[in-house]
Amino acid sequence: MDAIDVIRAKRDGAELTPAQIDWAVAAYTRGEVAEEQMSALAMAILLNGMSRAEVSRWTQAMIDSGERMEWSALDRPTTDKHSTGGVGDKITLPLAPAVAACGAAVPQLSGRGLGHTGGTLDKLESIPGWRASLSTAEMLAVLRGTGAVVCAAGGGLAPADRKLYALRDVTGTVESIPLIASSIMSKKIAEGTGALVLDVKVGSGAFMKTAGDARELAETMVAIGADHGVRTVALLTAMDRPLGNAVGNAVEVAESVEVLAGGGPADVVELTVALGREMLAAAGMEGAKDPADALRDGSAMDVWNRMIAAQGGDPRAPLPVAREAHELTAPSSGVLTRLDAFGVGVAAWRLGAGRARKEDPVSFGAGIVCHAKPGDKVVAGQPLLSLYADDVARFPRALEALEGAVEIAEDGAADLPPLIIDRVS
Amino acid sequence: MDAIDVIRAKRDGAELTPAQIDWAVAAYTRGEVAEEQMSALAMAILLNGMSRAEVSRWTQAMIDSGERMEWSALDRPTTDKHSTGGVGDKITLPLAPAVAACGAAVPQLSGRGLGHTGGTLDKLESIPGWRASLSTAEMLAVLRGTGAVVCAAGGGLAPADRKLYALRDVTGTVESIPLIASSIMSKKIAEGTGALVLDVKVGSGAFMKTAGDARELAETMVAIGADHGVRTVALLTAMDRPLGNAVGNAVEVAESVEVLAGGGPADVVELTVALGREMLAAAGMEGAKDPADALRDGSAMDVWNRMIAAQGGDPRAPLPVAREAHELTAPSSGVLTRLDAFGVGVAAWRLGAGRARKEDPVSFGAGIVCHAKPGDKVVAGQPLLSLYADDVARFPRALEALEGAVEIAEDGAADLPPLIIDRVS
Repeated sequence: MDAIDVIRAKRDGAELTPAQIDWAVAAYTRGEVAEEQMSALAMAILLNGMSRAEVSRWTQAMIDSGERMEWSALDRPTTDKHSTGGVGDKITLPLAPAVAACGAAVPQLSGRGLGHTGGTLDKLESIPGWRASLSTAEMLAVLRGTGAVVCAAGGGLAPADRKLYALRDVTGTVESIPLIASSIMSKKIAEGTGALVLDVKVGSGAFMKTAGDARELAETMVAIGADHGVRTVALLTAMDRPLGNAVGNAVEVAESVEVLAGGGPADVVELTVALGREMLAAAGMEGAKDPADALRDGSAMDVWNRMIAAQGGDPRAPLPVAREAHELTAPSSGVLTRLDAFGVGVAAWRLGAGRARKEDPVSFGAGIVCHAKPGDKVVAGQPLLSLYADDVARFPRALEALEGAVEIAEDGAADLPPLIIDRVS
Repeated sequence: MDAIDVIRAKRDGAELTPAQIDWAVAAYTRGEVAEEQMSALAMAILLNGMSRAEVSRWTQAMIDSGERMEWSALDRPTTDKHSTGGVGDKITLPLAPAVAACGAAVPQLSGRGLGHTGGTLDKLESIPGWRASLSTAEMLAVLRGTGAVVCAAGGGLAPADRKLYALRDVTGTVESIPLIASSIMSKKIAEGTGALVLDVKVGSGAFMKTAGDARELAETMVAIGADHGVRTVALLTAMDRPLGNAVGNAVEVAESVEVLAGGGPADVVELTVALGREMLAAAGMEGAKDPADALRDGSAMDVWNRMIAAQGGDPRAPLPVAREAHELTAPSSGVLTRLDAFGVGVAAWRLGAGRARKEDPVSFGAGIVCHAKPGDKVVAGQPLLSLYADDVARFPRALEALEGAVEIAEDGAADLPPLIIDRVS
């Protein structure tokens, strides 16, 4: 087998054979296929696409490059959720405990934020003492004790994907649906979950800007799940505006705790419950307790407290607070017709909530709290957004990112897509 | 400027701006654009193409990556020829002296063979004592003294092209007309010639298998030449059968000397004269002596002898002879309807005339001499091809390459394209 032959085949529009895919991914992982060869192949895949058979096999080859976890020692079915990333997307925080409280096990390997979308691990690390890195034995112990665990993926899981993702990041080959789908699914399948619900975000603050692209990605991932025996369902959900009111790290933890206490913003509650029901159904647990009840009766909060404590965190400790605050007020009265997710996400990132490079630290206290959401009536001068940062020098560029992100109409109505746009199974 | 932005622009079908092209090529040469980034860009260029403005600017950027030679110190116009490579293509050897004998200066930087097509420098190095590497001052001295010089390109000429070519070679991105055209033209323009004639080969033994592809490449190169003030013309010529009778190194030198002595195979003479007339016309020397006369009256041979001697070679020394020979005879009587250039080229390469990797040495004596050409009548048992190698172990695989390359029809006629298929200017 020869890298150039594989590149040429894809370049010239052929379907790669299983043997070509297995070899290319394994040889790349071993370093026999050079980075510059894989980047040419990735560009050819991006431009010429992949069939369902190719993308399933590619996913399998990435799974086979490392270890595959398995949770047969548990006495509960496993189920997990993956979001393609958005602004204010803290859903995992109330969701994993709620689903665990309904009787399933949620073994979630999660990631850190890069760019304008946040990362679940960054948010959880704002809880004093909480640590993201667990051994497989520790994961099993937390799962057994609480029903849910959210932690960082170890280096042994789909190393081909980690290597390929870093390469795609610097070679303009991120935006390929087969490569995105196989990257996500290889990690989720290697994680060993029996069922999977995908939250595919659509809109300015999402990776997929249109419902068409989001649907294609969702369908590709659902097909890969089916081909690998993981019951997979996807929801397409709105990411034209932020999810909830809080965008950042500690501010999102605080909002998640409100939801776990039976309150919190309506959209966060709605999506948590919808995804929780899908996770239970995909796990074959149709008769289980409803996640809405788990949020209402305190059982989800109970799992949360035990889960955080099991990973060294103190769920009752005060959360970090930013040193500086700046208030953005409504310039006129009327209806808030637009609060652009991308603008808010970039602003929060510039305030210090996110990182520009993998090595950068995040500020746990930085972020934004929205005091109105699209559709709400606002009065000139009322607080619209509170910005938080550790350094006042961060405000000007954050405010720049918000220019044009807010629109108020004297007597208009916000024209918003529904929170849950579609379902793919 | 950022490599990812440039890659994305070409990936998404945009025309690269002059600033993007200048930056990408210069930053790649400096090592700031990584190999894996350039290979992704090369694949995007291969699949999405380049406009005339882009390919001209790309060529300029590659020229600007190094030095540009200039020959204003000479009292003659400069003119050169470049062939896209074929089997038995020794045309430079009689052509450069013939054109010099007609009054032009020919400053030819040439290359070595790789794969089944030979390289002019390998052929000339079979002449005892001849050396390919000259300084610019030595080049000028040889040009002044003889009117022609054929030597290796120094490292200072279009270093971006050298780096990019090595990368394309291992990443499946060779077969892009804009990248091939800009690679060839950057070196030829940097070489400083005032006029240029391109011999674009078409057929099984050529890089371009169809006249359509060859015409597109020719038109692209002619346009680049025009954009850079180099008067450029292209001939599309047949490479379905070998050119001349000899294929190898020393055997091609011997055949070239026959042509310089006023004899030699008709096709070699025809192409030498045609290209020579184009070179003189492109240099604005319409009233000059005819290259056919220069071959006939010994003046071309005189330039040859002085040119070889000026680079340390002994034009009268015996040429290297292979240690072993093997004769392939005609299996039946009739008309030779096919002698496939690719089959003969691969066979000569396997006999040792060419190299598989850049570092490999070539055997000067190895090669093939054809005793009949397509269209000739042959009698069963007569010698058809003589194979030469330094080791008998090389014959079996060379003979394998010739299977199916020879066809004899009892009473047929060879259906051949003309030697000179078309002219692009």
